[in-house]
Amino acid sequence: MNVSDLVKRVLVGRKLASAQLGETLLPKRIALPVFASDALSSVAYAPDEILLTLSLAGMAALSLSWEIALAVGLVMLIVVLSYRQTVHAYPSGGGDYEVATANLGPNAGLTVASALLVDYVLTVAVSVSSGIQNAKAILPFLAGHEGLWAAAVIVLLMSLNLRGVRESGALFAIPTYGFMIAVLGMTGWGLFRILVLREPLQAPTAGLEIAPAPGYESFSGVLVLVLVARAFSSGCAALTGVEAISNGVPAFREPKSRNAATTLGLLGTVAISMMAGIVALANLTGLKLIDDAGGSSFIANGVVVEVPHETAMGQLARTVFSDFQPGLYVVIGATMIILFLAANTAFNGFPVLGAILSRDGYLPKALYTRGDRLAYSNGILALAGAAVALVLAFNASVTALIQLYVVGVFVSFTVSQLGMMRHWTRRLRTEQDPKRRARMLRSRVINAVGLSCTGVVLVIVLASKFIYGAYLAVIAMVLVFLLMRSIRAHYDRVARETAVGPADARLLPSRVRAVVLVTELNKPTVRAVNFARATRASTIEAITVAVDAQEVRKLVAEWDALQIGVPLKAIASPYREVLGPFLNYVKGLHSDNPRDVVCVYIPEYVVGHWWERLLHNQTGFLLKARLSFLQGVMVTSVPYQLESSRYALARASRDSVAARRRSGRGEARMGKALEGRRRG
Amino acid sequence: MNVSDLVKRVLVGRKLASAQLGETLLPKRIALPVFASDALSSVAYAPDEILLTLSLAGMAALSLSWEIALAVGLVMLIVVLSYRQTVHAYPSGGGDYEVATANLGPNAGLTVASALLVDYVLTVAVSVSSGIQNAKAILPFLAGHEGLWAAAVIVLLMSLNLRGVRESGALFAIPTYGFMIAVLGMTGWGLFRILVLREPLQAPTAGLEIAPAPGYESFSGVLVLVLVARAFSSGCAALTGVEAISNGVPAFREPKSRNAATTLGLLGTVAISMMAGIVALANLTGLKLIDDAGGSSFIANGVVVEVPHETAMGQLARTVFSDFQPGLYVVIGATMIILFLAANTAFNGFPVLGAILSRDGYLPKALYTRGDRLAYSNGILALAGAAVALVLAFNASVTALIQLYVVGVFVSFTVSQLGMMRHWTRRLRTEQDPKRRARMLRSRVINAVGLSCTGVVLVIVLASKFIYGAYLAVIAMVLVFLLMRSIRAHYDRVARETAVGPADARLLPSRVRAVVLVTELNKPTVRAVNFARATRASTIEAITVAVDAQEVRKLVAEWDALQIGVPLKAIASPYREVLGPFLNYVKGLHSDNPRDVVCVYIPEYVVGHWWERLLHNQTGFLLKARLSFLQGVMVTSVPYQLESSRYALARASRDSVAARRRSGRGEARMGKALEGRRRG
Repeated sequence: MNVSDLVKRVLVGRKLASAQLGETLLPKRIALPVFASDALSSVAYAPDEILLTLSLAGMAALSLSWEIALAVGLVMLIVVLSYRQTVHAYPSGGGDYEVATANLGPNAGLTVASALLVDYVLTVAVSVSSGIQNAKAILPFLAGHEGLWAAAVIVLLMSLNLRGVRESGALFAIPTYGFMIAVLGMTGWGLFRILVLREPLQAPTAGLEIAPAPGYESFSGVLVLVLVARAFSSGCAALTGVEAISNGVPAFREPKSRNAATTLGLLGTVAISMMAGIVALANLTGLKLIDDAGGSSFIANGVVVEVPHETAMGQLARTVFSDFQPGLYVVIGATMIILFLAANTAFNGFPVLGAILSRDGYLPKALYTRGDRLAYSNGILALAGAAVALVLAFNASVTALIQLYVVGVFVSFTVSQLGMMRHWTRRLRTEQDPKRRARMLRSRVINAVGLSCTGVVLVIVLASKFIYGAYLAVIAMVLVFLLMRSIRAHYDRVARETAVGPADARLLPSRVRAVVLVTELNKPTVRAVNFARATRASTIEAITVAVDAQEVRKLVAEWDALQIGVPLKAIASPYREVLGPFLNYVKGLHSDNPRDVVCVYIPEYVVGHWWERLLHNQTGFLLKARLSFLQGVMVTSVPYQLESSRYALARASRDSVAARRRSGRGEARMGKALEGRRRG
Repeated sequence: MNVSDLVKRVLVGRKLASAQLGETLLPKRIALPVFASDALSSVAYAPDEILLTLSLAGMAALSLSWEIALAVGLVMLIVVLSYRQTVHAYPSGGGDYEVATANLGPNAGLTVASALLVDYVLTVAVSVSSGIQNAKAILPFLAGHEGLWAAAVIVLLMSLNLRGVRESGALFAIPTYGFMIAVLGMTGWGLFRILVLREPLQAPTAGLEIAPAPGYESFSGVLVLVLVARAFSSGCAALTGVEAISNGVPAFREPKSRNAATTLGLLGTVAISMMAGIVALANLTGLKLIDDAGGSSFIANGVVVEVPHETAMGQLARTVFSDFQPGLYVVIGATMIILFLAANTAFNGFPVLGAILSRDGYLPKALYTRGDRLAYSNGILALAGAAVALVLAFNASVTALIQLYVVGVFVSFTVSQLGMMRHWTRRLRTEQDPKRRARMLRSRVINAVGLSCTGVVLVIVLASKFIYGAYLAVIAMVLVFLLMRSIRAHYDRVARETAVGPADARLLPSRVRAVVLVTELNKPTVRAVNFARATRASTIEAITVAVDAQEVRKLVAEWDALQIGVPLKAIASPYREVLGPFLNYVKGLHSDNPRDVVCVYIPEYVVGHWWERLLHNQTGFLLKARLSFLQGVMVTSVPYQLESSRYALARASRDSVAARRRSGRGEARMGKALEGRRRG
């Protein structure tokens, strides 16, 4: 049993029997990295985006980076406090979708789900893009083709997930702690050198000036407000992933809720420290970033200069470890890895959310009732496809992608907080114990603060980023929402249409008339006849369509010679067509005997290779599709296993040994989680 | 009854009962345009290619264009005479594939078929590309995106053919005669102005000099030979399509063979005249073309100049009709239309050849035994896809594409002539009548001359063009050949494996055990149970997989309440999997009763829209695929028609009124042709 399996098993909220799985529950020191990679990784790009956005107004605005980082930290603090309430209220793990659905109804839940699905795609796109942008500091050849490299990384993650990577706690713990140590170490050492050793550390861009973007020359009034709002919105990307712990409460050791709450607090502290450290170092070393696409530019000695873009992390590592080159490699390597790991968490979360939505009828049922890796695979492929399209369309520009990001997270935060308020209000209606009531009232106040805060941030994000790209995310969410609504409407309509009553059970056909389709005389055909004969139908006929008189005569002669128990009957075909005359024959048979059911037997070749399928069964395939539209007709495929199918079978059972190990775990993880959730 | 249908019906060689179709047989004046569009259209690019190739050696070589055109004309004369023998020998229409197969065996036939299939693709690519290149003379905006425009035209032709265009004799006659009149008129008027009126007509490029391509500066010795060979090979593109008449003899009025032979002679005369006229005019007006890609260039006043490329047809029309602008439009319009019409003939020929090859087991059987437009559609899609890839890859450059062309035609010519020689030798063995023997001996001599001629041309074409692109055509032919061989080998292997003996007819299972898969309780499930009950199997069980204990208890309770005749049995699933446990159950049932056959009933939803299919039946679909690998198991789909399927059915039957009109004709045309051929 590995940790990641366990986490995924509970990610959607199963209450594990501790007797059964107690010893594998997560201590806080493992739970933190397992749930934190997404949230922590965003400090690799959030500070950059604050600085970049402010650069539009030139040097004057840069000094505001401190205040904006502080504001982002404050929001994170409030969100962390709010989710601590969720952790206490839903010790079985309350995903935002579940909290919203349970407290606010299906449309609220579906809103959250749409937001989350879109956000999973953006998590992959932004994380991988940032990973590539950061990696350029030590792998300069990536420059120029960032989009393609990011796409390649996504395809790699996709294939690992399709094959079923074997994850372990170490997979999360080592890079996450490595990243924390690397970044905090870099910050500490940098601050030590500057503040204690009084070394005059200068970032590579320290000597440059920034020319504001056209239109931003006078930095005042409304412009300040707008720009600060945009910088703040981009900085809020640091909050993505904070909600993960609230989904995973059951994975914690007892006392679960308290441990989860503590870990959440820890996560918040670490994230805020890292963010603060990076912004502080950036200010102290005179680090500058520009937004080329937005229009700001670097100036050296009064002349506009082209400077290759390097991330804040890259510049800081280069500066702080100016006397210790390996430090740069460690920081950038750890940053890159944790970003790819953050993207990987989306590959786990997306199909699980898909299964939950499928269970509720909002996505094809096949995603829920599975027996194959197919369902997972479809989710993984869809996620990877959308993310690849994004990184290619935006050439892996984090600045461009981040305009679409964050909206989804804050929709989800806000609706979830509203759900929590409703939750406490409901609980308060029935709760008598004054001490508990006090605690609930306190929780409700915290969630109310959280709601106002995330609501305000959502409005700021939407207002400040809408025209820069957020509208695309909103459109995507609306489309996903409508798609899920219409799928659900379809299932509801089908359920009403197929609802069964006592009368249905008595609609028994009086007799069965068997018809075997014959196109050639060979073992598959003879097997079909023999199987049909074994069913002892009222009548049994072997039918061939006479497209060629000469051939039919030959066929009938051979048929009779073999003394097959059923005589062969040929029906005329004026146009060399097989399907039309056969369909008409079956139709006629049924309308002559409306109380009987017609059973059509079709011999079918079972082959081993996909390409062999193109060579067989095409007529049968078309015929089945057409027959299915007829009332009172059923279609029986009589498979004939060609030799090549045996190899395929052997190959399949060899694969399934490996697949079962993976997929069995997957099934268990997912299945029990879903089951638990339904009951919980 | 329209002419094109008739022609297609006989294109592959059916001997029509003249009593039945006599009055619709083609008079020579309609037969000529119907069969000539492909052959005549090539004069729109063959002269260009001769001039282009010679331009590589600069001005000195241009004077050879006359001799090369003469040589091409001579080859055409010989090929026409040779095919007149075929026309007499196969009054039922002898396609090259059939002639080769009948006289030289299947590998020869398959060689011809591979060559023809590749050549159909090239006919489309070259004709459409040339159409676009010519059209630039009056539609200058086409320049710069020739590849895309050509692809668009191919896609348009494809959709017209997928929808089933209604063709008529006029469709062929008007543009073909229009083209003949336009080109011969232009030539006549041009020669009249130059020779009679003594006007000094000068082509737009007359004043320019040509700088030879690097390496060709000294035009002598081997270089002359090589270049002349290349120019001649490209000029031989004029011969493509000459063989069409020999396929269509049965479409002619009596006396068929003589009429066909006369028409063939007429076609040869017209084609040679047009070619000669264009080359003569080009020489007289000082027209020059360069091969930019090859390296030759225009020089004006000693300086290399860029001149937009214009085809010979465009330049000549511009020159001859310098005082009558509409003439230019007519000539170019007619040229463009006949080129697209030539491409369209490939869209008719390709699926018919595909069906013949499918009948012989070299392509998937579904292409032959059809009942749908599916088979045609696949052929049309494949042809269009390959042609689009070519025009995009070569940016619709006729010069580049022509390097691949012609190889296939001459492979087909040569093998077919060899087949004809064998044909006469065989006939001579049994023929006693001295007069007939004399005629046969004469025919054999003509075919021998044809064989030597086309054989030599084939060698010249291969040698002179191999490295310039012909190797691609050769590779494609070899791949197509191998693909068809392996498909045939597969079918032969399957036929051997499934050959039936008297023992097979007695392999009767003793009993049938019915198993109904239950996942929900609704009308489709109840119908499946009722149908299964109607079959009166020895045992009948309703099986559900218990992925969720609570749900199963509810399902069983409801099941019992409805008093469905068969008790519901739940089987355990440790991993929330449906397929695995169910498959194991079925496997166990069969191995406990090896002499019985298990019949699994699966309820299936029949829906109306393609997207609804994604929402239903996925589990059943996977289950069927897995069950088919089990011995002694058959699978019965019990369809349940949802309301939406009724609309689909209504739509389908509405469509089929139109489709039947088309497809009925198509079936008849193809079917009878194939049938006739087999007997003929």
